This record gives sequence, structure tokens and C-alpha cells, in this order.
Amino acid sequence: MIKVGLIGYGTIGKRVADAVALQKDMKIVGITGHTYDFKIEVAKIKGFKVFTTGDKEEFIKNGIKPEGDLKNLMEDVDVIVDCTPKKIGKENKEKYYLPKKIKAIFEGGEKHEVADASFVAQCNYDEALNKNYVRVVSCNTTGLCRTLNAINKNYGIESVHATMVRRAVDPWDIYHGPVNAIVPVLELPSHHGPDVQTVLHDINIFTTAMSVPTTLMHMHSLIVDLKKDATAEDILDTFKKTTRVRVVRNAEKVRSTAEVMEFAKDIGRSRGDMPEICVWEEGIGVKDKKLFYLQAIHQESDVVLENVDAIRAVTGFKDGQKSIEMTNKALGVNNF
Amino acid sequence: MIKVGLIGYGTIGKRVADAVALQKDMKIVGITGHTYDFKIEVAKIKGFKVFTTGDKEEFIKNGIKPEGDLKNLMEDVDVIVDCTPKKIGKENKEKYYLPKKIKAIFEGGEKHEVADASFVAQCNYDEALNKNYVRVVSCNTTGLCRTLNAINKNYGIESVHATMVRRAVDPWDIYHGPVNAIVPVLELPSHHGPDVQTVLHDINIFTTAMSVPTTLMHMHSLIVDLKKDATAEDILDTFKKTTRVRVVRNAEKVRSTAEVMEFAKDIGRSRGDMPEICVWEEGIGVKDKKLFYLQAIHQESDVVLENVDAIRAVTGFKDGQKSIEMTNKALGVNNF
Amino acid sequence: MIKVGLIGYGTIGKRVADAVALQKDMKIVGITGHTYDFKIEVAKIKGFKVFTTGDKEEFIKNGIKPEGDLKNLMEDVDVIVDCTPKKIGKENKEKYYLPKKIKAIFEGGEKHEVADASFVAQCNYDEALNKNYVRVVSCNTTGLCRTLNAINKNYGIESVHATMVRRAVDPWDIYHGPVNAIVPVLELPSHHGPDVQTVLHDINIFTTAMSVPTTLMHMHSLIVDLKKDATAEDILDTFKKTTRVRVVRNAEKVRSTAEVMEFAKDIGRSRGDMPEICVWEEGIGVKDKKLFYLQAIHQESDVVLENVDAIRAVTGFKDGQKSIEMTNKALGVNNF
Amino acid sequence: MIKVGLIGYGTIGKRVADAVALQKDMKIVGITGHTYDFKIEVAKIKGFKVFTTGDKEEFIKNGIKPEGDLKNLMEDVDVIVDCTPKKIGKENKEKYYLPKKIKAIFEGGEKHEVADASFVAQCNYDEALNKNYVRVVSCNTTGLCRTLNAINKNYGIESVHATMVRRAVDPWDIYHGPVNAIVPVLELPSHHGPDVQTVLHDINIFTTAMSVPTTLMHMHSLIVDLKKDATAEDILDTFKKTTRVRVVRNAEKVRSTAEVMEFAKDIGRSRGDMPEICVWEEGIGVKDKKLFYLQAIHQESDVVLENVDAIRAVTGFKDGQKSIEMTNKALGVNNF
Repeated sequence: MIKVGLIGYGTIGKRVADAVALQKDMKIVGITGHTYDFKIEVAKIKGFKVFTTGDKEEFIKNGIKPEGDLKNLMEDVDVIVDCTPKKIGKENKEKYYLPKKIKAIFEGGEKHEVADASFVAQCNYDEALNKNYVRVVSCNTTGLCRTLNAINKNYGIESVHATMVRRAVDPWDIYHGPVNAIVPVLELPSHHGPDVQTVLHDINIFTTAMSVPTTLMHMHSLIVDLKKDATAEDILDTFKKTTRVRVVRNAEKVRSTAEVMEFAKDIGRSRGDMPEICVWEEGIGVKDKKLFYLQAIHQESDVVLENVDAIRAVTGFKDGQKSIEMTNKALGVNNF
Repeated sequence: MIKVGLIGYGTIGKRVADAVALQKDMKIVGITGHTYDFKIEVAKIKGFKVFTTGDKEEFIKNGIKPEGDLKNLMEDVDVIVDCTPKKIGKENKEKYYLPKKIKAIFEGGEKHEVADASFVAQCNYDEALNKNYVRVVSCNTTGLCRTLNAINKNYGIESVHATMVRRAVDPWDIYHGPVNAIVPVLELPSHHGPDVQTVLHDINIFTTAMSVPTTLMHMHSLIVDLKKDATAEDILDTFKKTTRVRVVRNAEKVRSTAEVMEFAKDIGRSRGDMPEICVWEEGIGVKDKKLFYLQAIHQESDVVLENVDAIRAVTGFKDGQKSIEMTNKALGVNNF
Repeated sequence: MIKVGLIGYGTIGKRVADAVALQKDMKIVGITGHTYDFKIEVAKIKGFKVFTTGDKEEFIKNGIKPEGDLKNLMEDVDVIVDCTPKKIGKENKEKYYLPKKIKAIFEGGEKHEVADASFVAQCNYDEALNKNYVRVVSCNTTGLCRTLNAINKNYGIESVHATMVRRAVDPWDIYHGPVNAIVPVLELPSHHGPDVQTVLHDINIFTTAMSVPTTLMHMHSLIVDLKKDATAEDILDTFKKTTRVRVVRNAEKVRSTAEVMEFAKDIGRSRGDMPEICVWEEGIGVKDKKLFYLQAIHQESDVVLENVDAIRAVTGFKDGQKSIEMTNKALGVNNF
Repeated sequence: MIKVGLIGYGTIGKRVADAVALQKDMKIVGITGHTYDFKIEVAKIKGFKVFTTGDKEEFIKNGIKPEGDLKNLMEDVDVIVDCTPKKIGKENKEKYYLPKKIKAIFEGGEKHEVADASFVAQCNYDEALNKNYVRVVSCNTTGLCRTLNAINKNYGIESVHATMVRRAVDPWDIYHGPVNAIVPVLELPSHHGPDVQTVLHDINIFTTAMSVPTTLMHMHSLIVDLKKDATAEDILDTFKKTTRVRVVRNAEKVRSTAEVMEFAKDIGRSRGDMPEICVWEEGIGVKDKKLFYLQAIHQESDVVLENVDAIRAVTGFKDGQKSIEMTNKALGVNNF
């Protein structure tokens, strides 16, 4: 059993905790919360040991006695998954993980440099094998890598141009906007392009981005210049065979991100999550070696799968394909 | 085993089907879909027999062979739950259920007159006992009845004034608005007041309503003139003891409808549903026998519980309290 | 000519500057900006002298040379209108206005105590006459005072209960949410009730509030216990005769806050503003001396009128009624 | 004076009426409304003669006596501008304009085939000269044509790929959604590409589209393969010199569609309109003859300018450049 410590019990952290707990070869030693809230109450209900990186007294006052702090949690773990907000992971690495020589997984909010490898399981599992520090890339980068890797392997990619239309905030976040505007990201290219290259090193990709007032999923509009000829049917077939990608169909009235989420709820997914990248069958087009497609990314859950696989990779589990299968099976990925 | 036929597999229908399937004393004989879509695919995955009220050929073309039509489904059921859109239930009653002498449950979109009783389990279970036609009231009316009944029983109600702030559309609905407006309902009183009186016959209630651009839950702001003195603590205590009501706390950072929904997902509720009516602890106030409180209603799921109990009532199960307990237990209601 | 200095050129400040510039008896000596942005460019286009309370060099770098700072602007003004964010007004008073004995108008973000009187022109003009410091109350409080004062004068008010459904953010604000939630204000009563009493001292009022994902207007649902009998027609007639109140009609397809705003644009209002409080004709109901009505408040503009009148009051213009007429005429209020 | 009849007094129609009324060489003979609403009341206030294509009695009942119907309006006009909903224009042409030999301007909801030419003034004014039927293209197509034409003239265009992120509904529309979803347009290419080619006949363009929950403006993300080398500064310079295009700057805190709209209100534009296509200075990038830029389109107003110019073109005014200048001056376009 791989003993996992989970630091940062937020949107990603709480999902990784649940996912790890469902693996036969892993267990959660404990989780840390920073402030007291309903998520901590749920962690207790689920039987996770609660540690804190924040004010211990605040937890006690609310009826939850933490088992200790981050250092205490580190005492008996094989690997830390650090799901803290941007930049805190780097601080934690320097302050705690490096001195204690503890392996750690970081999230996409951290920079590539914090880790020995950036990671998307089906693209570069072997790069992460036995490394000490691995960074799971952001939800958007993960989504781009999963589909582009499949296309690249089968048809070769000359170049990619993607427009990323991002959800404004996660569903629970009532603090940030916009409420009624489209906000262009005025960096050219947006950071997603270079970030893809930390995983798919040779892909020539340029991205632009904007954010819009919705909470549900990101949408990507992609244009790929292929090296080899392919038909829309070929591409569709490739996506159908690609793990952690799901083809959705307008013909079944999955016409929007809202209906993707409804479908995920209907099939009983935990928290209504859809960790597969969803590509619209009717949105795939090819014209003169130029491929167009549209994909939706569930920002809250796609990277949860990579966190589980990254745990196996850093702890020496050699077979990436096998790890992906184990993770998928435990979580019901691509089960229909 | 009570044999249940489910007509109309939409927002409410699909939930009622799942809920019935979880009861030890009931089973779903089949469901009907009107048009082919992803929900029908899910019904098939779940093992429900699919009938259709629509175009059989459209289903076959999409790879699903219906078992028959509404009439075929009626052949071997004890009770029909009719979750079709407004007014269709009445048509179905006259055309199918009455001639065939089949008992039926209707939803809140139908008028009170369609049924022998309007129904909220914890308020008037006995009224529905052995009736042929029972109408589960709307999500908003159900929410009002659950909390007002508890207050009335304990402190007596002189009068109620409620402002209902309604979600614009259900999460999956991409067709209707408003996107950026508040829309007052210009009927005075709104229909919710008289509708409450179909269940709590003696309550003096006046309601106004508006709709706002959100998909998650309705919010009610209530003012109740009490007959007896009570403190905010008394009221809080009453709500804590009331089934299918849940006290939520700002202190746990449940500050909005979004966080109620997040909490429901976190505790593993099917589809992220919250069938309990959620009252904010910090929103309860009393001043000179005037009670103020705020409650959130999950429009997609609260009435699911009443549908299950109504099935028992019409088929002769006498103990309403016991039915409520059975339903709650099967669905995990008020489990924390 | 009353010489006016305008501190804080934001949502309210820029509108007050335009409104003052349109009065025959006033002129804008200058405005202050805190940071450089497009609003400052527009001030320049409009011919306002630009001062700064922020970093002078930042302005110069962007091609705008400030005329000086807040102190310089104070050198030649009769009255300051301070439209800075919450709490800054109080600081400015203590640091600048009191020592220099300069009269000042504050906005509703400041507390009642900062001023000698809180102010809604048609309710208590005389209270502000010749005072040194006057506070224009918030948009919501102004809206409540305008309609409640008219009802109180004509029929007497026993008590008021209002639910305020607030817009999440102003249209330009892309930073704050919620995007998809209803957020209850968990203070009972909300601050709007006591705030009304700073103007209408004897009104017994209790308010609750929530915020919703829209940018356009606030909506109030009001219940008023009247002292004297009145019909809905009586109330409608009263509102029609009340200045700075506008009756809108569903019959003309003004069905929402969005259509109120569209109407304001259509009739050529500056910035599409609607400073009148809008009451729906079809939303007025009376039952046993209990009055119900719904009103929409344009949070960006209603208080602009009061700022202009407050300037006259503090500088000794005695006739409140006349001031209101002058302001209305210059700004086209109630012109149709 | 060119005598103009305006059919269809909606979002575009009411703006065209105002714009025509501001031209020295034109006048509005009358406008038609289909149903009674506040827009008709405003038309009356503005002094337009009101005709109706709908139920005359409904207008009279509401206190407005129509001057007649569409046929009556046609009796004394030189040209009709038909701003009716999609497909009605074509019907009107066949039923009324062709038999009566009346020249007419159609909007982008009609197909190219309805007219003798599709039209964007600064691209192909001469094509419309003295034609009987001219179609002003849609807001999105107009926006694409204005900027692409300028680039093509200066640097040559090999190909264009554009992702159009569309506002869900116009600000006044409370009926349609989505409220919380991104909806991909599953036609490849979207119709905007071929539509651009009805004006810029030789441009090789491919477009994809989606709609998002906002009311304010459309946003386009464009990738243009240039024939000639150019720097970002070159392109910026070209846009600055292009009429009916406006460069907006993040440096001035115009960071979103919301702030573009705020700016338009601040500078006193009628209805807060921004008929210029807005390109972000900081969003322009060039890499190896590949140009990237982001532009925002005010869907309610950009085509108003083309309607005015189209009137001149069909009635024989030969100088397109001069017409554009006249229209711009009357409406304050590019005045800052």
C-alpha cells in the first residue's frame, strides 16, 4: 500500500483524496485543511484523518481536533500530493519536502521548474518514473495533451492553434466574476501553449484565451495542421480509441457543456464529474490536412486521474498503461 | 412489490425512477421517453425497460427498440407516476388512467383539481391514503409546506408573507433565460400561496415572486406572524427536528446556493441532489412574534421524496411516518 | 455659481460630475482620479480639470498632467462631493475637509455619523439646509425612502417589510461574483432598514437581502401595513404624482429590469441611466390595509439627483421643492 | 431628401431610424411596429409616424392610432429598410417591394440571394450602387469584413481562421439562454465564413463558433496567414487608420467587453452603442507571417452605419468614401 498524504483539501484535493481512497494499492494517511469549513466536516464523515496547515484553535473551536500539522502528516507517508494554491507548493517543497526527502506531486498552478517532470499519464508516464517531484499540468493543458497526443501519434502534427474559452469560476466560487462580460486574456500566446510543450515537447502550438460567465467547463476550439492525410471519420475513430477522451454527440442532445454535466450526473459519476475530455462528434472537420475540433474540459476533475497515476510513477510502478487501466477502472472512466 | 410505471423521463422523472428502484417494496416496470436523447441511453444502461410516448421509429433508428407505448406499459403496473410536462398529465388521466382505472401520481405542473388530494408527505399523508389520484405539489410549494407545517404545529401561524426568488432554468436547460435581468412575476399573490393551501388548508399566506439568472436553487425569504412566543433558538431547534429540512451554517462557509450544491456533491448525493429544504441558521430571526427566515429549495429533487411516499399512500400503506423513514433511509436523506 | 470639487471619479462620481455640469447654478472646478484609466481620458475629453489623489507620475506617463492633488482642488471650491470608496470619505473629512472648513457631501458607503444629516431630497431637504456635512444615502435606501415617504404622507405606515434582491456587481465590474448562485445576506435585519430611519426617522421597517448574478438593477419586494385604507388605484395614483418615481407597465412589455434599462436607452438617457425608482403598475396590490409592490432601483444613477440637491442645500438654497425641479429639468427626469 | 420607410422597429430598426433621422440628406417617412410595446411609445415621443404590420386594433386600444399599414407606408418612400426578423424580409420583397418596384435594404438574417449585393460600406460600396436590393450583412460578418479588408489591402491574406464567441442574447431579451453553459455551434465551418465571402469574394476563411452567457458583445479570436511580412506595430497602425475600427487598450483598463460598453456610455454614445469594431492593442501578435488578434463586436449597432450608407448607394450617391464620412460625422463615429 502506497501511503499518501494530501495537502490542500480544495476543489482538486478533495477529489484526489477520494480517488486515492478507491485505489487498491494506495491509502490516504491524512488530509490537511487550512481553514475550517464544510469540506472539513465532510472529510471527517468520510473517515479521513484531518491535519491542519492553519490555525489549530479555529478547528478545535468548531469541534474538530486536528491530528497535527503538515510536518506530523509527513511522518508516515510515501508521497505527498500537494494541492495547495499557486506558489504554495513551491514554498512547501523548499521548506518541507526537500529537507525531509519526501516525494511530492504538484499541480498545474506551480511552474514546470518546481518538478523533475510535467506529466500527463497517457503522454509521458515514463518521464515521471521514480522521479522525486512530478507536476500534474493544469486542466486545460491536460485536455490539450490527451487529444493532441493521439492525433500526433496517428497522423503527425505540423502545428496547432487553439482558442480556449474558459469558465469564469468553479461552481462553488461566489466571489469572482465576470457576471456579464467576455474577458480576453491579453498575453500572446497564452501560457497554455508553452505548458503543453512541457509534456509534448515537440508540438508546435499557439494558443489564445478568454474567460466567460459560466461555471461548468472550459471549451477549446482547435485547428491542427496534420502531416498525414486523414478524414473526419479517421479522427473520430482515433478519439474513440483514446483513453480518457469521450466522444459526445449532438444527435443524443448533448449540445452544450451543461448537457455534458447533466450526462455525468445521470450516469452516477461522483460529484457529477466528467474527467474524460469530451469531443463533439459533429464538431470534427477536416479540410486539406487541416483538422478542426471542439472539446470540453471539466476543470474540476480531469487532472484527478493524472494525480493517481503520478503517485504510482514516482513510487516506482513501471507499467504506465497498467496504471491508467487501474485508475480508470477504480473511477469508472470510459465505462460507457 | 409495488409495480410502478414511470411516464416522462425528464428532470423529475429520471430521479423518481432511481428513487423507486432503491425502495425495497417497489420496482420500476418501465419508463417512457418522448424523444430520443442521452437520458434514454442512460435508462438503458441502468436496466430500465424503455417504452415511448413518441415516435417509435426515431428510437429504433438510434439503436433503441422500445418495449411498447404508454398503453403497453400500463398493462402490468399498480400505479403510474406521471412526470410529463404541464397539462399532459391531465390529458393522460382522461385518456388512459381513468378508463383503465389505473392509479396515478401527478406533479405540481398539474392543477389541484386533477387529483383527489395535493400532497406533501409530512403534512398530509393520510389525505392521500388509498386515493386514486394524488398530486405532488411543486418544488416551491413543497419547500414552503415542510417548514411552515413545523412552525404551525409548534407555535401556530397567524399569517405568512414570502418572497420567492426563483432560479431561471434547470442546469441542463440552455434554451431559456434571463441571462442578465431580474424578472418580477406580476401576479399578486403569486400562485404559490394558494397552492400551499391545497396542502396546509388553514394557512393564511401571501406570496410574491421573481426569477433571476441562476440555475441552482430557489431562495425564499419568509416572514411569519406567530401565534405563540418563540425565540430564534426555539425555531432553530424545531427545524433541526423536522424531517426533510436541513439547517445549514454560514459558520461552515455554506454561504450561498452554490455552496449548498457543493456540499451535496461532497457528501456523495446522487446527481449532487439536496432534497432537504435548507434553512440558514444565521438567517433565522424573531422580533415580537414575527419570525424571519431564509430557505433554499433544490428544485430538481425535493419532490422526489414525496413521489415515493405518494406511491405508498395510494397503494394502501397506512403508516405515513414509517413511509417517510423508509424513503429517507433508502435515499440517505438527513443522514448527517 | 456654486463651485464644486469632485473627489473620486468612479460609477457615481463621473455621473455627479456630468449632472453638476448641466446645472445653471453650478460648475465643476475639477475632478480627482486615483489611478489612470479610460475614465480619466473621458474626463479630459469632457473638459474637466483632472487632479489626482494617487500617483502623479503614473498619470504623466500616460500623457495626462494633473492640475494638482486633492489639496490643490480644495483651494477654490465652495463644496466637495466625495464619491470615494467606503471609509475613504471619513478619512478625507478628518484629514482635509474639517481642518480647511470645507463643506462636503458624502455617499451611502459612509456611515450616518460622518455627516450632520443623511439625505433624500424629497424626504428631508430642510434637514440638510446649511449643514456642513451631508450624506446622500445608498441607492437602495434612496429607493425605499422615495416610495415609502409618499405612502406615509398619504396613508400612514404602520410597518414595512422589504426583501431586497440586489444585483451582484455594476456592469463594468468583471472582478466580483457570483456567476451562478443566490447569496443570502445573513444579517437580520439587513442594514437597509436602519439606514432608511436615518432619513425617515419614524418608519418601522425590517429588511432582508440577497444578491443574484445580474448587473442591471436591484429589485425590492415590499409589504407595507397601512394606517389608512387605500386601493391599488389610490397607490398607483400616488406613485404617478411622486417625483423621481416612475410607474412602468407590463402592458407595454416592460417586464424586467432588462427592459427598464432598454427603455432608458431608447429615450436617450445619458449612459442609459434611469434615476427614477420604477414601480410596476401590475405589481401593486392591496389586501386589508396591506400593500404589496415591486420596485426596481438603478444603482448607478438614482442618487445622482440627491447629490445635486445636497449641494444646493449645504450652500444655502432654501427651497427644496424648487431645487428638485431644477435638477429634474436639467437631467430630464420624469420627462415622459 | 431621401425618403426612407423603416419596416420592423426592433433592436436594429429603431437604431437605423434614429441614424437616418440624423442624416442631412435623409428623412424617416414612418416606421412600422408589429405589436404594441414601449418601443412604439418611444417612436411616438420621437415624432416618428407609426404604421403597423400587425393588429391595428391592438395599437388603438393602447392609445396609438397607426397611420396605416406597410402598403400605406410604401406610398411615399424612395427606399425601404427592412429590419424584420429572419425570412420576413424575403416574404416582404416578393409580396410588396418587387410588385411595387420599391428599392429595399435587407439585414443579415436574410440570405445573400434575396439581394443584388451583400454589403459592407468600406469594402464594396460600389457593388451596391444603384442596385434595387442590397443586404447589409450580419454584425459578425460586418466586423470580420472591416478588419480583414484592411489587412488584405495592406498585407494580403492567404487564409483566415476565426473562432467567434457569441453573446447569448441581446440585453433586453429575457426569454432565451443559455444561463450557465457554453454552446458550441456544430456546423463546420460556421456560416460566418461563407458570409464574409459574399462581401470579400476572394478571402479564404474558415470559422467556428460558440455562444456564451453574456448579453454585451461578441468576441472574435482571429488567426490570419499574411502574404507579406508585417510587425504587430504595422498591424496596429493599419487598424488605427481604418475607419469604423477602434483600437482599445488594456493599459487604459479596457479589459473586457463590459468596459468597452462602459466607455461607450461614458463618451455619450446614443444608447451606449459602440458601432466601431474594437481591437485590443495588447492582443495583436505576429509570428512568422501569422497574425493573431482579438476583436469585440457590438451586435446591436455596428451594422447601423452600413444601413445608412446602403440607402445612399441604392439611391445613386456615387462617392462611397464621402458617404462613410457623412454617416460617421452624423453619428460621432471614431470621434475620439
